[in-house]
Amino acid sequence: MKKPLILVTNDDGMFAPGIKALVEVAKRHGEVVVVAPNSPQSGQGHAISLTTPLRLHKVDAFDDVLAYECSGTPVDCVKLAKHVVLKDRDVDLCVSGINHGSNASINIIYSGTMSAAMEASLEGIKSIGFSLLDLSFEADFSASKHYADKLISHALKNDLGVGNLLNVNIPKLPPSEIKGIKICKQGEASWKEEFKEAEDPRGEKYYWLTGKFIMTEQPKDTDLWALNNGYISVVPSHHDLTQYESITPLQSLENQINNS
Amino acid sequence: MKKPLILVTNDDGMFAPGIKALVEVAKRHGEVVVVAPNSPQSGQGHAISLTTPLRLHKVDAFDDVLAYECSGTPVDCVKLAKHVVLKDRDVDLCVSGINHGSNASINIIYSGTMSAAMEASLEGIKSIGFSLLDLSFEADFSASKHYADKLISHALKNDLGVGNLLNVNIPKLPPSEIKGIKICKQGEASWKEEFKEAEDPRGEKYYWLTGKFIMTEQPKDTDLWALNNGYISVVPSHHDLTQYESITPLQSLENQINNS
Repeated sequence: MKKPLILVTNDDGMFAPGIKALVEVAKRHGEVVVVAPNSPQSGQGHAISLTTPLRLHKVDAFDDVLAYECSGTPVDCVKLAKHVVLKDRDVDLCVSGINHGSNASINIIYSGTMSAAMEASLEGIKSIGFSLLDLSFEADFSASKHYADKLISHALKNDLGVGNLLNVNIPKLPPSEIKGIKICKQGEASWKEEFKEAEDPRGEKYYWLTGKFIMTEQPKDTDLWALNNGYISVVPSHHDLTQYESITPLQSLENQINNS
Repeated sequence: MKKPLILVTNDDGMFAPGIKALVEVAKRHGEVVVVAPNSPQSGQGHAISLTTPLRLHKVDAFDDVLAYECSGTPVDCVKLAKHVVLKDRDVDLCVSGINHGSNASINIIYSGTMSAAMEASLEGIKSIGFSLLDLSFEADFSASKHYADKLISHALKNDLGVGNLLNVNIPKLPPSEIKGIKICKQGEASWKEEFKEAEDPRGEKYYWLTGKFIMTEQPKDTDLWALNNGYISVVPSHHDLTQYESITPLQSLENQINNS
């Protein structure tokens, strides 16, 4: 049987411990190719480089693994991987991460890690994004690796459902305290932004984004509840942003405008 | 009665004709404040600036309108507008655009224009993103302005439904040939990427993203069908990426992993 082809990417860059952990797990399941950003790209969302050229360099980052660093965004990495590095070979799975920090709830929208996974799904590739709720480069990835192994194994053998994209978040807990995975929906929360206002060395004012994640009490079917209660959250996700509930109520707007 | 407060932004930058057209329309409906990028930001998706400071400068770009240019992404513009420029005043509506080029179908995911509108909705502000299917800076905005006027008027007086975000695309047609608006869902399509490969003046290889929008036959309830048939498409949109249909089928994965 042909070995599965697994594309690994992330948004923290090639030298983040999280991608090393993910490559180690992916190697147990098939041929691994890595295309990752050459610098940290957190918060890049689904950005693509339209007005700048992209650089792609082969690097010796992981034992026995073909790896390239790319000057672009995480989404650029996936596009270059598919169309240049792998020259349209069939990719069996794309895994993105393991991100350092949460991509649960609305963080999926801002996340380079999850946008890379979504780009793979837009290209028709099954994909999973992994995030550990620990920003530290000293983070313990053992539980993440244990569950990533099981999820990769499952994803290679099974249909992931329409959308083909899983958003997996792992709580910062010792492996023995993790209760298992939980299939959930995206929880509702918000960022309370603040900007640090200061002056640069030339006396020019600048603003630097900071903020606080605001979470109200969560229903039991959300990723935020799962993570707060010792579970790994798994949210099946897709690229359709339509708010279907609003289509019928908005018919009145259609009639009103078209008949005026 | 208090005049409504309307925030205007875009992703093409402060000097694109599309934002000028939108400011002209918005001024008929209330107090307008503009915060827009100081350079073109197409394809920036939901990127935010985490690792760089942001600059904000008051500019004299539109008659009788307070306007600021910002060094960041479209999403940064909305965050700075809400929390610095408007210091948490209640914003009644955010309008983004008028974009030069389509944001229908999956383009919403890559779009700076629509990500700015979505950021406003995440901040609890009703919002509408407008895009005209004409990339030219000589584009004719008369039909766009006519319908933007009606939609802004409606949005200020009515609930837009959960999600509070409309993705409005206007076909490139003379005003007399536009049949009206149509409430739709996001159509399915894909980009067939290609990379132009070349050498820079130093002999180093680079890749430049290009591609072709691939659209199969569309159901009549999609934005792509509407645009191809002379309608302005209006897609109610939201930030929940959960693929609800897949939650039940994935319970077997939950059982399998948790019991292994």
